[in-house]
Amino acid sequence: MSRINILAVDAMGGDAAPQAIIAGLEIAAARHPQAKFLIFGDEAAVAPLIAGTKRLKNQHELRHARDVVAGDMKPTVALRLRDSSMRRAIDAVLGGEAAGVISAGNTGALLALSKIVLKTMKGIDRPAMAAIGPSAKGDVVMLDLGLNVVYDARNLVEFALMGELFARVTLGLPRPTFGLLNIGSEEGKGDEILRTAAAMLRESPIASQFHGFVEGHDIAGGTVDVVVTDGFTGNVALKTGEGALKLVGDLLKRVFTSGPFARAGYVLARGGLNRLREWLDPRRYNGAVLLGLNGVVVKSHGGTDAEGFAHAVDVALDMIGQDFGARIAAGLAAMDRAMLSTTADE
Amino acid sequence: MSRINILAVDAMGGDAAPQAIIAGLEIAAARHPQAKFLIFGDEAAVAPLIAGTKRLKNQHELRHARDVVAGDMKPTVALRLRDSSMRRAIDAVLGGEAAGVISAGNTGALLALSKIVLKTMKGIDRPAMAAIGPSAKGDVVMLDLGLNVVYDARNLVEFALMGELFARVTLGLPRPTFGLLNIGSEEGKGDEILRTAAAMLRESPIASQFHGFVEGHDIAGGTVDVVVTDGFTGNVALKTGEGALKLVGDLLKRVFTSGPFARAGYVLARGGLNRLREWLDPRRYNGAVLLGLNGVVVKSHGGTDAEGFAHAVDVALDMIGQDFGARIAAGLAAMDRAMLSTTADE
Repeated sequence: MSRINILAVDAMGGDAAPQAIIAGLEIAAARHPQAKFLIFGDEAAVAPLIAGTKRLKNQHELRHARDVVAGDMKPTVALRLRDSSMRRAIDAVLGGEAAGVISAGNTGALLALSKIVLKTMKGIDRPAMAAIGPSAKGDVVMLDLGLNVVYDARNLVEFALMGELFARVTLGLPRPTFGLLNIGSEEGKGDEILRTAAAMLRESPIASQFHGFVEGHDIAGGTVDVVVTDGFTGNVALKTGEGALKLVGDLLKRVFTSGPFARAGYVLARGGLNRLREWLDPRRYNGAVLLGLNGVVVKSHGGTDAEGFAHAVDVALDMIGQDFGARIAAGLAAMDRAMLSTTADE
Repeated sequence: MSRINILAVDAMGGDAAPQAIIAGLEIAAARHPQAKFLIFGDEAAVAPLIAGTKRLKNQHELRHARDVVAGDMKPTVALRLRDSSMRRAIDAVLGGEAAGVISAGNTGALLALSKIVLKTMKGIDRPAMAAIGPSAKGDVVMLDLGLNVVYDARNLVEFALMGELFARVTLGLPRPTFGLLNIGSEEGKGDEILRTAAAMLRESPIASQFHGFVEGHDIAGGTVDVVVTDGFTGNVALKTGEGALKLVGDLLKRVFTSGPFARAGYVLARGGLNRLREWLDPRRYNGAVLLGLNGVVVKSHGGTDAEGFAHAVDVALDMIGQDFGARIAAGLAAMDRAMLSTTADE
């Protein structure tokens, strides 16, 4: 079995670990019969769960890891745990045993460990977190989703380059469009960092795909394929959008259970309503990717269930299968050569 | 007729001005038979529209204003127009002819003119824009929505104080709760400005109503009555939430028109669905308020229709009727005395 099909898994991260993790891997194993999972965690807790699976038990290797990175643990503390399931899973990528790693655990710790173990890609100053969400015109990629509260124009440009490549690989778009999130689409809007980043992008090799500034409503509106922003704004926007969708979902549920007529109405429109619910299901969009590291690192939502975790595994295997790491490295190198003159005056 | 019932109106601002403005005032006139509208605009365009109304024609006074502040006009240019409908309407508040002003025009110009003519309140460094939106637990106030891209901790504290008072007056809550928007609820999250603002709020006279940091999903979740943030984040969050709601609305429309069964289902569940649509209707939340100025200044969405504009008029008349200006001034003065020791070390 080639290394390209092996995904390292932190079995101990997330609110429902290790149960939801193992159940999610079982779903993923059925969808990816050629994949193999290198699982790290507390053997006493994990082994019995795996023993109860049908497919995973033949598509895995379990390694005992003594320590667990707690959800509220500071990254500096997590770094000191030498035998955590998270650390060991990342180490497996560095050692060449796996092509990528997935964890539903502590995001800060996952980033800190990945940066220290795998290192940031050549040409990238700061990694960014990207995810895919629903829009009126299909899927939309957004980044950064929370890693970079402090950032500069060059960081935003790098996020744009990485996001563009991510959309090409995961959405299969030959020339994805992208925009910088701002509070207006006019050129003078926003702060100095945004205006500088926009100027740099207008001179970049992907300038023709640059839509300029976009606004909050453009995310769900599908104005562009990739929405580029800083980690603070992206995190707030993501959670605000999720919150709004959840509000409508909850209210609709209330409407359709409010009486016999409404119930009958639901039954009649069920087909379309279920398709809509499935399409907007947050689990379908689970699996954020830490871009800019030497290796595929996928972060599952900590509160997700087995189905959601399986989707995050899909994302990781998709990126591994498409050799995302090598493609993004090549793309960045090409970009860097082209932009050398543009950014030399910084 | 007392000055407290008089609202100055810029008839020329917004995408559908003056038609939507006058039609909106007609709706508002029916709802507020005691109110009077001091309307500024191009007499030739506006007078015939008013003549066609039933109620407004008896509840208004029209004053000719030669100039119009265009939607894309820079504030510095708008300031030079001496006889714009927007300027004249604001002047009417300064001159004591009206208790407040409403415009659906250029936000930047409205802010700049209001600051120059009415001045910022004593004790307030920067005005902020607030609006009310839907949440799972009733209405939620959010500010700032776009005025302050540059800000400091003291500004955020002032936004919190103004937002708390705004929620008391407009939502009728005796002790509204509030939170600072951040990317996590833990104390160490966010940048230095947010952490300093949180520390100041924990020492403020409204500390017991301070929920600490809240996240994007808490806006629609209704975790707090008032969500406090900077103008960039607030603007993005507002538009992202609106975009998400619009996406679901559009998709639901498609579901219920997708075939005869779905259509019949819609008919059966129509009562609840219509109530839901009305409740989430963006027009019902139209009318953002510029807080921190000496006078009530309400900004209607430029793209709204007559119904939406009428709602913004409701907001303005509500604030005027409750003597918001005097109450916020008194509240800020009390707050300032109490916080003098806390902020002296800044």
